[in-house]
Amino acid sequence: MLLFRCDYAEGAHPDILRRLTETNFEQLDGYGSDPYTESAKRKILQACGCPGGEVYLLVGGTQTNSTVIAALLRDYEGAVAVETGHIGVHEAGAVEYTGHKVLTLPQHLGKMDPGELEAYLCAAEADPNRDHMVWPGLVYVSQSTEYGTIYTREELAKLKAIANRHGLPLFVDGARLGYALASPKCDFGIADMKDLCDVFYIGGTKVGALCGEAVVFPAGAPKHFFTTVKQHGALLAKGRLLGVQFDTLFTDNLYGRIAANAIERAQELIAVLKEKGIPFFLESPTNQQFVILENSYMERIGRQVGFDIWQPYDESHTVVRFATSWATTRDQIEKLREIL
Amino acid sequence: MLLFRCDYAEGAHPDILRRLTETNFEQLDGYGSDPYTESAKRKILQACGCPGGEVYLLVGGTQTNSTVIAALLRDYEGAVAVETGHIGVHEAGAVEYTGHKVLTLPQHLGKMDPGELEAYLCAAEADPNRDHMVWPGLVYVSQSTEYGTIYTREELAKLKAIANRHGLPLFVDGARLGYALASPKCDFGIADMKDLCDVFYIGGTKVGALCGEAVVFPAGAPKHFFTTVKQHGALLAKGRLLGVQFDTLFTDNLYGRIAANAIERAQELIAVLKEKGIPFFLESPTNQQFVILENSYMERIGRQVGFDIWQPYDESHTVVRFATSWATTRDQIEKLREIL
Amino acid sequence: MLLFRCDYAEGAHPDILRRLTETNFEQLDGYGSDPYTESAKRKILQACGCPGGEVYLLVGGTQTNSTVIAALLRDYEGAVAVETGHIGVHEAGAVEYTGHKVLTLPQHLGKMDPGELEAYLCAAEADPNRDHMVWPGLVYVSQSTEYGTIYTREELAKLKAIANRHGLPLFVDGARLGYALASPKCDFGIADMKDLCDVFYIGGTKVGALCGEAVVFPAGAPKHFFTTVKQHGALLAKGRLLGVQFDTLFTDNLYGRIAANAIERAQELIAVLKEKGIPFFLESPTNQQFVILENSYMERIGRQVGFDIWQPYDESHTVVRFATSWATTRDQIEKLREIL
Amino acid sequence: MLLFRCDYAEGAHPDILRRLTETNFEQLDGYGSDPYTESAKRKILQACGCPGGEVYLLVGGTQTNSTVIAALLRDYEGAVAVETGHIGVHEAGAVEYTGHKVLTLPQHLGKMDPGELEAYLCAAEADPNRDHMVWPGLVYVSQSTEYGTIYTREELAKLKAIANRHGLPLFVDGARLGYALASPKCDFGIADMKDLCDVFYIGGTKVGALCGEAVVFPAGAPKHFFTTVKQHGALLAKGRLLGVQFDTLFTDNLYGRIAANAIERAQELIAVLKEKGIPFFLESPTNQQFVILENSYMERIGRQVGFDIWQPYDESHTVVRFATSWATTRDQIEKLREIL
Repeated sequence: MLLFRCDYAEGAHPDILRRLTETNFEQLDGYGSDPYTESAKRKILQACGCPGGEVYLLVGGTQTNSTVIAALLRDYEGAVAVETGHIGVHEAGAVEYTGHKVLTLPQHLGKMDPGELEAYLCAAEADPNRDHMVWPGLVYVSQSTEYGTIYTREELAKLKAIANRHGLPLFVDGARLGYALASPKCDFGIADMKDLCDVFYIGGTKVGALCGEAVVFPAGAPKHFFTTVKQHGALLAKGRLLGVQFDTLFTDNLYGRIAANAIERAQELIAVLKEKGIPFFLESPTNQQFVILENSYMERIGRQVGFDIWQPYDESHTVVRFATSWATTRDQIEKLREIL
Repeated sequence: MLLFRCDYAEGAHPDILRRLTETNFEQLDGYGSDPYTESAKRKILQACGCPGGEVYLLVGGTQTNSTVIAALLRDYEGAVAVETGHIGVHEAGAVEYTGHKVLTLPQHLGKMDPGELEAYLCAAEADPNRDHMVWPGLVYVSQSTEYGTIYTREELAKLKAIANRHGLPLFVDGARLGYALASPKCDFGIADMKDLCDVFYIGGTKVGALCGEAVVFPAGAPKHFFTTVKQHGALLAKGRLLGVQFDTLFTDNLYGRIAANAIERAQELIAVLKEKGIPFFLESPTNQQFVILENSYMERIGRQVGFDIWQPYDESHTVVRFATSWATTRDQIEKLREIL
Repeated sequence: MLLFRCDYAEGAHPDILRRLTETNFEQLDGYGSDPYTESAKRKILQACGCPGGEVYLLVGGTQTNSTVIAALLRDYEGAVAVETGHIGVHEAGAVEYTGHKVLTLPQHLGKMDPGELEAYLCAAEADPNRDHMVWPGLVYVSQSTEYGTIYTREELAKLKAIANRHGLPLFVDGARLGYALASPKCDFGIADMKDLCDVFYIGGTKVGALCGEAVVFPAGAPKHFFTTVKQHGALLAKGRLLGVQFDTLFTDNLYGRIAANAIERAQELIAVLKEKGIPFFLESPTNQQFVILENSYMERIGRQVGFDIWQPYDESHTVVRFATSWATTRDQIEKLREIL
Repeated sequence: MLLFRCDYAEGAHPDILRRLTETNFEQLDGYGSDPYTESAKRKILQACGCPGGEVYLLVGGTQTNSTVIAALLRDYEGAVAVETGHIGVHEAGAVEYTGHKVLTLPQHLGKMDPGELEAYLCAAEADPNRDHMVWPGLVYVSQSTEYGTIYTREELAKLKAIANRHGLPLFVDGARLGYALASPKCDFGIADMKDLCDVFYIGGTKVGALCGEAVVFPAGAPKHFFTTVKQHGALLAKGRLLGVQFDTLFTDNLYGRIAANAIERAQELIAVLKEKGIPFFLESPTNQQFVILENSYMERIGRQVGFDIWQPYDESHTVVRFATSWATTRDQIEKLREIL
């Protein structure tokens, strides 16, 4: 069946599998001390314009979020996120499991409003009961968000300035960073990330890798972060699996190029959906498109194409998500057009 | 450089990479609901002789230990292990991080003594202060152990009987289960595991996979174990990466066959070490061999071959580990012979 | 200064201090195995109409909440509470610190709406992503609530029926249970609690004791709850301190009688506030009264009487709380009248 | 029955009950912001010779240990203690419950050997696998120890110097600090503690209070320690209960004077035990005395006097503990003499 359910339906970009195969019988040290991991880190730091920073390669998104957040927070601190933030909803309480509360703000098309962040932090500091409450310890946002929307340079800069002014780092969940950066609506590049947040990660799982998220600490990692990664069960014995993948993705900008494919296909997808008169739930400039389907129609086409059921819209309609990816082909869009 | 440092120096068995490549562009559902994962689970349960059991595919060993242990224990319980048990030493406190104490017994060549376990559990239950102490909640052993030694069928049966009589499950860390089962000294097979413990895992990372540990619950998994896996950051979005690997390893007994290679090479390694008059620290029937090297000699050969420094022996000698693996060749053993 | 800031401004009821003094030099066993603790438990169970239940005496409210909640939940579960619930706001993340998320519902004058609970639990079970989310594990409400409001018998019965139907226990935080039960608007007594929830506690700290909360498990406590209490640092060595206090409070219904004083004084307080034309923020039938003060007026009277600043109302007004207690006298109400 | 089972069999020193009664109806702010708590803190800091330090009043020993340890450690760190240390044995895993491993060293009559600490810390830092292991984060010792033994000034100074040289604070559990300081064998006073460790607490529960442990941070508390205390459920709403007690204990050196009584009675107890020819298990210079009783004799006298069964000695003998306290009278010692 044709799947537009998510951006991780296929395996890896063929270059990655080729490189894994080519290097397969080299004997390499474990836990990330192999030359491919070293090379991947160097290339990532170069692409990010912060050669003095540090990179850690972890396996998955939930794991990366809970590991980084636990490393950045003290026990009495929580993570500020919007109510639809991935850490607060679909990570099975992984952040709370490490002892930290997720403090929620309203969301606006999946985004955090700088004014609301400022108001929240000021109120938290002024609250006469503040010593009886969880202290805000970091600010968490996603680029792109759960709704496929993106922050502009100015918006991220504002969030960072506010967070920093209150003594908090800004952490950007970049599980879909590639797709955000490839969007024509995005007004900055990967080398700007170091200025727009304090720590972020570059998602591999959803952008061409079998697995892997590269955490970038532009100003250096928290002390003993390696041990923290191990303690979270996030340290891969065969670090080469992550090293080779990110080394490949950051050679000749493969990461950027394949992310662009998803955006181009998403534009075609939008055109198809509009052509069919399907109403959009919201406007997304990236690879996730949210539309409103009449329920019986949804059921009918659901037999031929996979999409993700997001939330009820009204009694007879449902919001669903169609996602393109690095692997989506024009042919698949065309087939979808026929089905719709 | 020639590496005998560990059993995870190479990538994956070529069949695995071939299957990953062949299936790469199939669109599959995530989080383990793909047909390869289903097939892998079916084949594993069949090999283990417990078709009614449940299998979960996790990524790495430390992660699997802390996830399974947390799922089996209540807050007031701890895991009983020998003092050299992996969970108590080299997992960065991952078990404690989830709130549970590792309760330690003496080790005997890396193994737990059934009599000592019985005495410990009886004493714990009879202790007048027992309500002020951590309650033993499960028994953890490794097959093979940190020293490459293995439990016999009778020994495991005894440990399980004792643990169960005291109301505790026996959990076997099988990161190197393949090598244990392939040893000529092992008097049982994988289908016996269901009778010799309550939960165990089949290590992929060290036996031919890029990553992956298959947890087998012969009598069914703890409630909502899927959510527990997610909460621990151990759920892979592209579950296919684990599914294809274990499906391949459990097709035509590839897992058993490649494990046997490590044991055959280990026998040749033992012969070479003996030929060179190098004294053994202990006798191991599996793929890890521990010998005592004079320090200056160790340094000299260390320039040509990698091995793992285990512990000081005396002022002028050191215990080191040589490990073979599924990928070790006769040629490599021969080269080592020349170096030594 | 005259304080109406809270219901724990004074020490203990004089009978308690007298009994502590009288029994002071008796040599008693520790950790709650003294006869006063035994007697207190027996009297509480009798008052609650569940002689077969179990009672544990803990020290404070936040401690009791986090200990009981951790004992009732499995790792993958969270506690459902309204957004103003004490556990989610003013307990410094104590519940999250033990690894559990607080799942929030809207509040209505501090109360949980049964219909909204039902809708939430049904949605949680029907959510296609439910396995990636925290499972609701118990329902938490307070009687009386943070706003001094109370649940009727029918409301609690409905909440319990809904929770139980979904497999969850209903836990009632009774830090102010005495004041709730003493309210003329409360249509049930302490002996009904066993039918209206699955576990609750009887607050001593705010109703006449120096410290202490008596947790009642009508159908028996979770396994090894004593050890759980110890693990949470909530076990008092000199258990007599709690035993003597609750034994005194539950002799000749002292608890009920002194709670009634707070309610009578609150009625007089309401009359004074109305007489002075001070608008109420909401109607509360218990010992906490919330009114709206103009800011300059608030500042002025604040020099003579202590009250609790609750939240801003608008730019020039603030919501403040006046609380009466078991110790409040008519004279104090009269003095307040003069100040206002 | 005559009890020598522990040092918390009686209530509080009568002066404490008197002061609680005298101040009972004063209206005071909660959570430790009352004048008695302020006064207690000031007097403690003065007695300790560190007026610039900070004091926090907590309720019990296990609670204080887990709260302070969690506040001092980062997630990847553990607490170094001897194998009989209270935190590792009789606190129900409260330290592990907060995510931290207790790293154990051998004990020598309950004490930590400076040489062994030094060797352990050096080995931990030199271990090639150190990044895969829990990092030592603080050193924990008790004064007096579980066996009633005490550290000399020189021993503590050495432990502190070693710990600090390796970047770790030394934390002294002073649940029985009063009895240690009152011992004629102790060669330093309470004002020396600030130089001999980095943080310590002054036990009230076992030395005359109903409850309460005063944590002293000579160089200031960890950031937001108040919130940490609250998060651990260790913050008392009626802080006056702790404030009045410690204020009384530190007025006219009541704490030191009543501790001295326990030591004087212990000397008499030793004389009685020797007179009766009962062999000592070890020599203790404080209020806990450990002797070896023949089992049938033990059973017989156990009907008339309470003592604590410590551990089996051999098949027909048992080690038991007799403890004196601030409240023990000469008359009680005499009665014991008659029973023995």
